[in-house]
Amino acid sequence: MAATGRDATIRRLKRIEGQVRGLVRMLEEDRYCIDVLHQVNAVKAALVKVESEVLKDHAATCVDEAIVSGDAEEQRRKFHELVKLFEGVR
Amino acid sequence: MAATGRDATIRRLKRIEGQVRGLVRMLEEDRYCIDVLHQVNAVKAALVKVESEVLKDHAATCVDEAIVSGDAEEQRRKFHELVKLFEGVR
Amino acid sequence: MAATGRDATIRRLKRIEGQVRGLVRMLEEDRYCIDVLHQVNAVKAALVKVESEVLKDHAATCVDEAIVSGDAEEQRRKFHELVKLFEGVR
Amino acid sequence: MAATGRDATIRRLKRIEGQVRGLVRMLEEDRYCIDVLHQVNAVKAALVKVESEVLKDHAATCVDEAIVSGDAEEQRRKFHELVKLFEGVR
Repeated sequence: MAATGRDATIRRLKRIEGQVRGLVRMLEEDRYCIDVLHQVNAVKAALVKVESEVLKDHAATCVDEAIVSGDAEEQRRKFHELVKLFEGVR
Repeated sequence: MAATGRDATIRRLKRIEGQVRGLVRMLEEDRYCIDVLHQVNAVKAALVKVESEVLKDHAATCVDEAIVSGDAEEQRRKFHELVKLFEGVR
Repeated sequence: MAATGRDATIRRLKRIEGQVRGLVRMLEEDRYCIDVLHQVNAVKAALVKVESEVLKDHAATCVDEAIVSGDAEEQRRKFHELVKLFEGVR
Repeated sequence: MAATGRDATIRRLKRIEGQVRGLVRMLEEDRYCIDVLHQVNAVKAALVKVESEVLKDHAATCVDEAIVSGDAEEQRRKFHELVKLFEGVR
Protein backbone atom coordinates (compact mmCIF):
# COMPACT_ATOMS: atom_id res chain seq x y z
CA MET A 1 0.00 0.00 0.00
CA ALA A 2 1.06 3.62 -0.47
CA ALA A 3 2.55 5.04 2.77
CA THR A 4 -0.23 7.48 3.78
CA GLY A 5 -3.06 5.05 3.17
CA ARG A 6 -1.17 2.26 4.88
CA ASP A 7 -0.61 4.26 8.06
CA ALA A 8 -4.30 5.11 8.32
CA THR A 9 -5.27 1.46 7.77
CA ILE A 10 -2.75 0.31 10.38
CA ARG A 11 -4.27 2.76 12.89
CA ARG A 12 -7.70 1.39 12.06
CA LEU A 13 -6.50 -2.19 12.58
CA LYS A 14 -5.00 -1.25 15.95
CA ARG A 15 -8.37 0.13 17.02
CA ILE A 16 -9.95 -3.16 15.87
CA GLU A 17 -7.38 -5.07 17.93
CA GLY A 18 -8.50 -2.97 20.92
CA GLN A 19 -12.15 -3.76 20.16
CA VAL A 20 -11.39 -7.50 20.10
CA ARG A 21 -9.61 -7.18 23.47
CA GLY A 22 -12.73 -5.33 24.66
CA LEU A 23 -14.81 -8.35 23.60
CA VAL A 24 -12.64 -10.65 25.72
CA ARG A 25 -13.23 -8.32 28.67
CA MET A 26 -16.99 -8.27 28.03
CA LEU A 27 -17.06 -12.08 28.22
CA GLU A 28 -14.85 -12.15 31.35
CA GLU A 29 -17.15 -9.62 33.03
CA ASP A 30 -20.13 -11.75 31.97
CA ARG A 31 -21.78 -8.95 30.01
CA TYR A 32 -25.17 -9.46 28.37
CA CYS A 33 -24.97 -11.70 25.24
CA ILE A 34 -26.91 -9.32 23.01
CA ASP A 35 -24.52 -6.46 23.87
CA VAL A 36 -21.59 -8.75 23.03
CA LEU A 37 -23.20 -9.62 19.68
CA HIS A 38 -23.74 -5.94 18.79
CA GLN A 39 -20.06 -5.34 19.54
CA VAL A 40 -19.08 -8.28 17.29
CA ASN A 41 -21.11 -6.60 14.53
CA ALA A 42 -19.23 -3.35 15.13
CA VAL A 43 -15.90 -5.16 14.66
CA LYS A 44 -17.13 -6.78 11.44
CA ALA A 45 -18.24 -3.37 10.13
CA ALA A 46 -14.79 -1.94 10.96
CA LEU A 47 -13.15 -4.80 9.04
CA VAL A 48 -15.31 -4.01 6.00
CA LYS A 49 -13.82 -0.48 6.08
CA VAL A 50 -10.32 -1.97 6.16
CA GLU A 51 -11.23 -4.05 3.11
CA SER A 52 -12.44 -0.96 1.24
CA GLU A 53 -9.23 0.89 1.98
CA VAL A 54 -6.95 -1.99 0.96
CA LEU A 55 -9.03 -2.61 -2.16
CA LYS A 56 -8.91 1.04 -3.27
CA ASP A 57 -5.17 1.07 -2.75
CA HIS A 58 -4.88 -2.18 -4.71
CA ALA A 59 -6.73 -0.57 -7.63
CA ALA A 60 -4.54 2.53 -7.51
CA THR A 61 -1.23 0.65 -7.29
CA CYS A 62 -0.95 -3.06 -8.24
CA VAL A 63 -3.78 -3.08 -10.76
CA ASP A 64 -2.63 0.18 -12.29
CA GLU A 65 0.90 -1.18 -12.67
CA ALA A 66 -0.51 -4.17 -14.53
CA ILE A 67 -2.49 -1.85 -16.79
CA VAL A 68 0.45 0.47 -17.48
CA SER A 69 2.73 -2.54 -18.16
CA GLY A 70 0.43 -3.64 -20.99
CA ASP A 71 0.99 -7.25 -19.88
CA ALA A 72 -2.31 -8.97 -20.81
CA GLU A 73 -1.64 -12.13 -18.78
CA GLU A 74 -0.90 -10.09 -15.67
CA GLN A 75 -4.08 -8.06 -16.22
CA ARG A 76 -6.19 -11.25 -16.50
CA ARG A 77 -4.59 -12.55 -13.31
CA LYS A 78 -5.42 -9.32 -11.46
CA PHE A 79 -9.05 -9.47 -12.53
CA HIS A 80 -9.44 -13.14 -11.64
CA GLU A 81 -7.88 -12.65 -8.21
CA LEU A 82 -10.53 -10.06 -7.50
CA VAL A 83 -13.44 -12.17 -8.70
CA LYS A 84 -12.15 -15.12 -6.64
CA LEU A 85 -11.80 -12.92 -3.57
CA PHE A 86 -15.43 -11.81 -3.82
CA GLU A 87 -16.72 -15.31 -4.55
CA GLY A 88 -15.15 -16.28 -1.22
CA VAL A 89 -16.99 -13.53 0.65
CA ARG A 90 -20.57 -14.33 -0.24
CA MET B 1 -22.18 -17.25 29.22
CA ALA B 2 -21.76 -20.62 30.91
CA ALA B 3 -18.14 -21.09 32.11
CA THR B 4 -16.99 -23.84 29.68
CA GLY B 5 -18.44 -22.18 26.58
CA ARG B 6 -17.12 -18.80 27.68
CA ASP B 7 -13.55 -20.03 28.07
CA ALA B 8 -13.58 -21.56 24.58
CA THR B 9 -14.99 -18.34 23.10
CA ILE B 10 -12.39 -16.24 24.93
CA ARG B 11 -9.63 -18.47 23.50
CA ARG B 12 -11.13 -17.99 20.04
CA LEU B 13 -11.20 -14.21 20.51
CA LYS B 14 -7.56 -14.20 21.60
CA ARG B 15 -6.66 -16.03 18.40
CA ILE B 16 -8.62 -13.38 16.47
CA GLU B 17 -6.69 -10.65 18.31
CA GLY B 18 -3.50 -12.37 17.12
CA GLN B 19 -4.84 -12.50 13.56
CA VAL B 20 -5.56 -8.75 13.66
CA ARG B 21 -2.01 -8.10 14.90
CA GLY B 22 -0.86 -10.31 12.01
CA LEU B 23 -2.75 -8.04 9.62
CA VAL B 24 -0.88 -5.00 10.98
CA ARG B 25 2.38 -6.84 10.35
CA MET B 26 1.31 -7.78 6.81
CA LEU B 27 0.72 -4.08 6.05
CA GLU B 28 4.00 -3.01 7.66
CA GLU B 29 5.86 -5.63 5.60
CA ASP B 30 4.04 -4.39 2.52
CA ARG B 31 2.51 -7.77 1.71
CA TYR B 32 0.41 -8.25 -1.40
CA CYS B 33 -3.07 -6.61 -1.08
CA ILE B 34 -5.01 -9.68 -2.19
CA ASP B 35 -3.28 -11.80 0.50
CA VAL B 36 -4.21 -9.13 3.07
CA LEU B 37 -7.84 -9.21 1.89
CA HIS B 38 -8.04 -13.02 2.15
CA GLN B 39 -6.73 -12.71 5.71
CA VAL B 40 -9.40 -10.07 6.51
CA ASN B 41 -11.99 -12.58 5.26
CA ALA B 42 -10.53 -15.22 7.57
CA VAL B 43 -10.94 -12.88 10.56
CA LYS B 44 -14.55 -12.14 9.58
CA ALA B 45 -15.27 -15.89 9.31
CA ALA B 46 -13.75 -16.41 12.78
CA LEU B 47 -16.02 -13.66 14.17
CA VAL B 48 -19.06 -15.41 12.67
CA LYS B 49 -18.08 -18.49 14.74
CA VAL B 50 -17.88 -16.32 17.86
CA GLU B 51 -21.38 -15.04 17.08
CA SER B 52 -22.73 -18.59 16.74
CA GLU B 53 -21.23 -19.61 20.07
CA VAL B 54 -22.52 -16.56 21.95
CA LEU B 55 -25.93 -16.95 20.31
CA LYS B 56 -26.25 -20.63 21.23
CA ASP B 57 -25.29 -19.83 24.79
CA HIS B 58 -27.83 -16.99 24.82
CA ALA B 59 -30.55 -19.45 23.76
CA ALA B 60 -29.52 -21.98 26.40
CA THR B 61 -29.28 -19.47 29.27
CA CYS B 62 -30.94 -16.01 29.06
CA VAL B 63 -33.74 -17.02 26.72
CA ASP B 64 -34.40 -20.20 28.63
CA GLU B 65 -34.60 -18.26 31.91
CA ALA B 66 -37.21 -15.99 30.33
CA ILE B 67 -39.17 -19.03 29.16
CA VAL B 68 -38.97 -20.80 32.53
CA SER B 69 -39.96 -17.58 34.36
CA GLY B 70 -43.24 -17.48 32.42
CA ASP B 71 -42.82 -13.68 32.15
CA ALA B 72 -44.50 -12.84 28.82
CA GLU B 73 -43.09 -9.29 28.60
CA GLU B 74 -39.56 -10.56 29.16
CA GLN B 75 -40.09 -13.24 26.49
CA ARG B 76 -41.29 -10.64 23.97
CA ARG B 77 -38.25 -8.51 24.76
CA LYS B 78 -35.90 -11.46 24.19
CA PHE B 79 -37.43 -12.21 20.83
CA HIS B 80 -37.36 -8.59 19.67
CA GLU B 81 -33.75 -8.15 20.73
CA LEU B 82 -32.84 -11.05 18.49
CA VAL B 83 -34.82 -9.83 15.48
CA LYS B 84 -33.27 -6.35 15.88
CA LEU B 85 -29.79 -7.84 16.11
CA PHE B 86 -30.25 -9.67 12.82
CA GLU B 87 -31.85 -6.69 11.09
CA GLY B 88 -28.63 -4.83 11.91
CA VAL B 89 -26.47 -7.49 10.29
CA ARG B 90 -27.97 -7.61 6.84
CA MET C 1 -49.65 -13.38 8.18
CA ALA C 2 -52.27 -10.81 9.20
CA ALA C 3 -54.39 -9.75 6.17
CA THR C 4 -53.13 -6.14 5.69
CA GLY C 5 -49.47 -6.99 6.02
CA ARG C 6 -49.88 -10.03 3.80
CA ASP C 7 -51.45 -8.05 0.95
CA ALA C 8 -48.61 -5.52 1.02
CA THR C 9 -46.02 -8.30 1.00
CA ILE C 10 -47.80 -10.08 -1.89
CA ARG C 11 -47.73 -6.82 -3.89
CA ARG C 12 -44.02 -6.52 -3.15
CA LEU C 13 -43.40 -10.11 -4.30
CA LYS C 14 -45.31 -9.46 -7.54
CA ARG C 15 -43.04 -6.49 -8.22
CA ILE C 16 -40.06 -8.77 -7.57
CA GLU C 17 -41.51 -11.31 -10.03
CA GLY C 18 -41.64 -8.48 -12.58
CA GLN C 19 -38.03 -7.53 -11.80
CA VAL C 20 -36.92 -11.14 -12.38
CA ARG C 21 -38.77 -11.16 -15.73
CA GLY C 22 -36.96 -7.89 -16.46
CA LEU C 23 -33.65 -9.67 -15.81
CA VAL C 24 -34.56 -12.34 -18.38
CA ARG C 25 -35.26 -9.56 -20.89
CA MET C 26 -31.96 -7.85 -20.08
CA LEU C 27 -30.10 -11.07 -20.88
CA GLU C 28 -32.13 -11.67 -24.06
CA GLU C 29 -31.36 -8.12 -25.21
CA ASP C 30 -27.69 -8.72 -24.40
CA ARG C 31 -27.48 -5.83 -21.96
CA TYR C 32 -24.21 -4.94 -20.26
CA CYS C 33 -23.21 -7.48 -17.56
CA ILE C 34 -22.54 -4.88 -14.88
CA ASP C 35 -26.04 -3.40 -15.36
CA VAL C 36 -27.48 -6.91 -15.03
CA LEU C 37 -25.51 -7.44 -11.81
CA HIS C 38 -26.73 -4.16 -10.30
CA GLN C 39 -30.29 -5.26 -11.10
CA VAL C 40 -29.67 -8.64 -9.41
CA ASN C 41 -28.56 -6.69 -6.33
CA ALA C 42 -31.79 -4.67 -6.45
CA VAL C 43 -33.83 -7.90 -6.44
CA LYS C 44 -31.84 -9.24 -3.48
CA ALA C 45 -32.43 -5.98 -1.57
CA ALA C 46 -36.18 -6.25 -2.31
CA LEU C 47 -36.17 -9.81 -0.96
CA VAL C 48 -34.52 -8.60 2.25
CA LYS C 49 -37.52 -6.25 2.70
CA VAL C 50 -39.90 -9.18 2.22
CA GLU C 51 -37.97 -11.05 4.92
CA SER C 52 -38.28 -8.12 7.32
CA GLU C 53 -42.02 -7.91 6.77
CA VAL C 54 -42.61 -11.64 7.20
CA LEU C 55 -40.37 -11.71 10.26
CA LYS C 56 -42.15 -8.79 11.95
CA ASP C 57 -45.48 -10.46 11.30
CA HIS C 58 -44.10 -13.73 12.66
CA ALA C 59 -43.11 -11.93 15.89
CA ALA C 60 -46.52 -10.27 16.20
CA THR C 61 -48.57 -13.42 15.52
CA CYS C 62 -47.01 -16.92 15.83
CA VAL C 63 -44.41 -16.02 18.44
CA ASP C 64 -46.88 -13.99 20.42
CA GLU C 65 -49.34 -16.90 20.45
CA ALA C 66 -46.60 -19.14 21.83
CA ILE C 67 -45.86 -16.55 24.52
CA VAL C 68 -49.52 -16.05 25.46
CA SER C 69 -50.09 -19.84 25.54
CA GLY C 70 -47.44 -20.20 28.25
CA ASP C 71 -46.25 -23.39 26.53
CA ALA C 72 -42.50 -23.47 27.30
CA GLU C 73 -41.68 -26.19 24.76
CA GLU C 74 -43.42 -24.27 22.00
CA GLN C 75 -41.55 -21.10 23.01
CA ARG C 76 -38.20 -22.90 22.85
CA ARG C 77 -39.12 -24.26 19.42
CA LYS C 78 -39.99 -20.76 18.16
CA PHE C 79 -36.69 -19.36 19.36
CA HIS C 80 -34.64 -22.19 17.89
CA GLU C 81 -36.41 -21.95 14.53
CA LEU C 82 -35.34 -18.33 14.35
CA VAL C 83 -31.71 -18.95 15.32
CA LYS C 84 -31.53 -21.79 12.75
CA LEU C 85 -33.01 -19.54 10.08
CA PHE C 86 -30.35 -16.91 10.64
CA GLU C 87 -27.52 -19.43 10.86
CA GLY C 88 -28.58 -20.50 7.36
CA VAL C 89 -28.33 -16.96 6.02
CA ARG C 90 -24.76 -16.10 6.92
CA MET D 1 -23.17 -12.96 -22.49
CA ALA D 2 -22.02 -15.77 -24.76
CA ALA D 3 -25.02 -17.71 -26.15
CA THR D 4 -24.63 -21.02 -24.23
CA GLY D 5 -24.04 -19.43 -20.86
CA ARG D 6 -26.84 -16.93 -21.45
CA ASP D 7 -29.41 -19.64 -22.20
CA ALA D 8 -28.51 -21.52 -19.00
CA THR D 9 -28.74 -18.32 -16.95
CA ILE D 10 -32.11 -17.45 -18.53
CA ARG D 11 -33.41 -20.90 -17.60
CA ARG D 12 -32.19 -20.34 -14.05
CA LEU D 13 -33.92 -16.96 -13.88
CA LYS D 14 -37.18 -18.51 -15.11
CA ARG D 15 -36.97 -21.05 -12.30
CA ILE D 16 -36.42 -18.15 -9.88
CA GLU D 17 -39.49 -16.40 -11.34
CA GLY D 18 -41.44 -19.59 -10.59
CA GLN D 19 -40.04 -19.66 -7.04
CA VAL D 20 -41.18 -16.06 -6.48
CA ARG D 21 -44.67 -16.96 -7.75
CA GLY D 22 -44.52 -19.90 -5.32
CA LEU D 23 -43.82 -17.43 -2.52
CA VAL D 24 -46.96 -15.45 -3.44
CA ARG D 25 -48.95 -18.71 -3.25
CA MET D 26 -47.40 -19.57 0.12
CA LEU D 27 -48.60 -16.24 1.51
CA GLU D 28 -52.06 -16.59 -0.06
CA GLU D 29 -52.38 -20.08 1.46
CA ASP D 30 -51.23 -18.66 4.79
CA ARG D 31 -48.25 -20.99 5.08
CA TYR D 32 -46.03 -20.93 8.15
CA CYS D 33 -43.77 -17.81 8.27
CA ILE D 34 -40.56 -19.74 8.94
CA ASP D 35 -41.19 -21.95 5.86
CA VAL D 36 -41.75 -18.77 3.82
CA LEU D 37 -38.47 -17.33 5.13
CA HIS D 38 -36.50 -20.48 4.25
CA GLN D 39 -37.95 -20.24 0.74
CA VAL D 40 -36.89 -16.57 0.51
CA ASN D 41 -33.35 -17.71 1.43
CA ALA D 42 -33.49 -20.32 -1.35
CA VAL D 43 -34.36 -17.59 -3.88
CA LYS D 44 -31.51 -15.40 -2.64
CA ALA D 45 -29.08 -18.34 -2.96
CA ALA D 46 -30.32 -18.95 -6.53
CA LEU D 47 -29.70 -15.27 -7.34
CA VAL D 48 -26.12 -15.57 -6.03
CA LYS D 49 -25.61 -18.36 -8.61
CA VAL D 50 -26.95 -16.07 -11.35
CA GLU D 51 -24.44 -13.44 -10.22
CA SER D 52 -21.56 -15.92 -10.41
CA GLU D 53 -22.54 -16.96 -13.92
CA VAL D 54 -22.91 -13.38 -15.20
CA LEU D 55 -19.67 -12.39 -13.52
CA LYS D 56 -17.68 -15.27 -15.00
CA ASP D 57 -19.05 -14.44 -18.42
CA HIS D 58 -18.18 -10.78 -17.89
CA ALA D 59 -14.57 -11.77 -17.14
CA ALA D 60 -14.38 -14.01 -20.22
CA THR D 61 -15.91 -11.49 -22.64
CA CYS D 62 -16.10 -7.75 -21.79
CA VAL D 63 -13.05 -7.66 -19.53
CA ASP D 64 -11.05 -9.79 -21.91
CA GLU D 65 -11.91 -7.48 -24.81
CA ALA D 66 -10.65 -4.52 -22.77
CA ILE D 67 -7.43 -6.41 -22.05
CA VAL D 68 -6.91 -7.47 -25.67
CA SER D 69 -7.65 -3.93 -26.89
CA GLY D 70 -4.74 -2.60 -24.81
CA ASP D 71 -6.87 0.44 -23.96
CA ALA D 72 -5.65 1.42 -20.47
CA GLU D 73 -8.56 3.78 -19.73
CA GLU D 74 -11.09 1.10 -20.61
CA GLN D 75 -9.23 -1.41 -18.41
CA ARG D 76 -9.29 0.99 -15.45
CA ARG D 77 -13.03 1.53 -16.00
CA LYS D 78 -13.69 -2.25 -16.02
CA PHE D 79 -11.83 -2.71 -12.77
CA HIS D 80 -13.55 0.19 -11.04
CA GLU D 81 -17.00 -0.97 -12.15
CA LEU D 82 -16.33 -4.27 -10.46
CA VAL D 83 -15.05 -2.76 -7.21
CA LYS D 84 -18.09 -0.44 -7.11
CA LEU D 85 -20.44 -3.34 -7.70
CA PHE D 86 -19.02 -5.26 -4.75
CA GLU D 87 -18.94 -2.21 -2.50
CA GLY D 88 -22.71 -2.03 -3.12
CA VAL D 89 -23.25 -5.61 -2.05
CA ARG D 90 -21.69 -5.59 1.39
